[in-house]
Amino acid sequence: MKLYEDSRAPNPRRVRIFLAEKGIEVPRIELDIMAEEHLAPEMARRNPLTRVPFLELDDGTVIAETVAICRYFEALQPAPSLMGETPKEQAVIEMWQRRVEQNLFQTVSQCFRHQHPRMAHLETPQIPEWGAANKPKAEWMLALLDRELAERPFIAGPDFSIADITAICTIDFMKVARIEMGDELVNLRRWRETVSQRPSAAA
Amino acid sequence: MKLYEDSRAPNPRRVRIFLAEKGIEVPRIELDIMAEEHLAPEMARRNPLTRVPFLELDDGTVIAETVAICRYFEALQPAPSLMGETPKEQAVIEMWQRRVEQNLFQTVSQCFRHQHPRMAHLETPQIPEWGAANKPKAEWMLALLDRELAERPFIAGPDFSIADITAICTIDFMKVARIEMGDELVNLRRWRETVSQRPSAAA
Repeated sequence: MKLYEDSRAPNPRRVRIFLAEKGIEVPRIELDIMAEEHLAPEMARRNPLTRVPFLELDDGTVIAETVAICRYFEALQPAPSLMGETPKEQAVIEMWQRRVEQNLFQTVSQCFRHQHPRMAHLETPQIPEWGAANKPKAEWMLALLDRELAERPFIAGPDFSIADITAICTIDFMKVARIEMGDELVNLRRWRETVSQRPSAAA
Repeated sequence: MKLYEDSRAPNPRRVRIFLAEKGIEVPRIELDIMAEEHLAPEMARRNPLTRVPFLELDDGTVIAETVAICRYFEALQPAPSLMGETPKEQAVIEMWQRRVEQNLFQTVSQCFRHQHPRMAHLETPQIPEWGAANKPKAEWMLALLDRELAERPFIAGPDFSIADITAICTIDFMKVARIEMGDELVNLRRWRETVSQRPSAAA
């Protein structure tokens, strides 16, 4: 089994933290996105949507998409659970993972991809107005998470989950998109400190 | 248990097809998005991101996000499986569900939301240039799905899955976004005909 990644990007970090929480080690192969190594023909053949990370199993099956890779390891080794055990836990964690992904991860990504000069060759056409329109959407979601975290320690409930992984990887990545977490978001700041102290955060 | 939806929108249809495939009936409550019924205070209190559909359980728990609602029912009643059984099946189906969602459902949605006059009050700011930029992305994904469907009957493998549900709901919705499925996409057309003949497609 091999995991292909560009270790600087936020999606590969989501998988690394997930694996670290489960104590699973997978050989990793670095692909430099900026040098377009992920677009090389032998990579595009394996991985037609050319996103990283992707996982290649020993039988040749390729599993792309961060959450699909996480799902594979969750099913293979359920403990410690990061995607929920009961039907209700699974659904609530999936709900929050998706809310964070769509309203924070994707809005921050759009700010970065449509406004940063280094992204011009990967995001065509770059539409700076669209990038800028995503900043208040991201800030709105940060404020919503702050209100939610007044009532519970982690984003999807009493326990650390994949929703926290998506959120910490996004928040740590916001700087490059020039989005800041306001000082008034005290619950989110408390959560960030707690999550950042987990050994997996260094993955 | 109650399912809140606007039955004209594509996401509620994804859940209805999923439930029909499993033979599960859930009482449904119609919310008119155009009349902003989903934004009413008692709805926004239950469902702070104000998207439909959302599911309210008898204990008051609210599960929003289409795929999280599907996950709940998949865990509650695994057969017939729509999200995979083995770890590899679960991961491959999740990969294709997400690929269709991000590269087709979301691009078609962006075309519609940023270009259709009826969406101006829900999508602010509307950026027609961004809407238009999504059309070739959607068409690219249709062509990719056509190539993939040359090799297997359904999007994620030999069996019908949630990936097919996301795809059929998107493709049937493309007309309002003024995107057409080209005549040359013969594999995708064959797939569409097969899927449209399932009784669940009328849900």
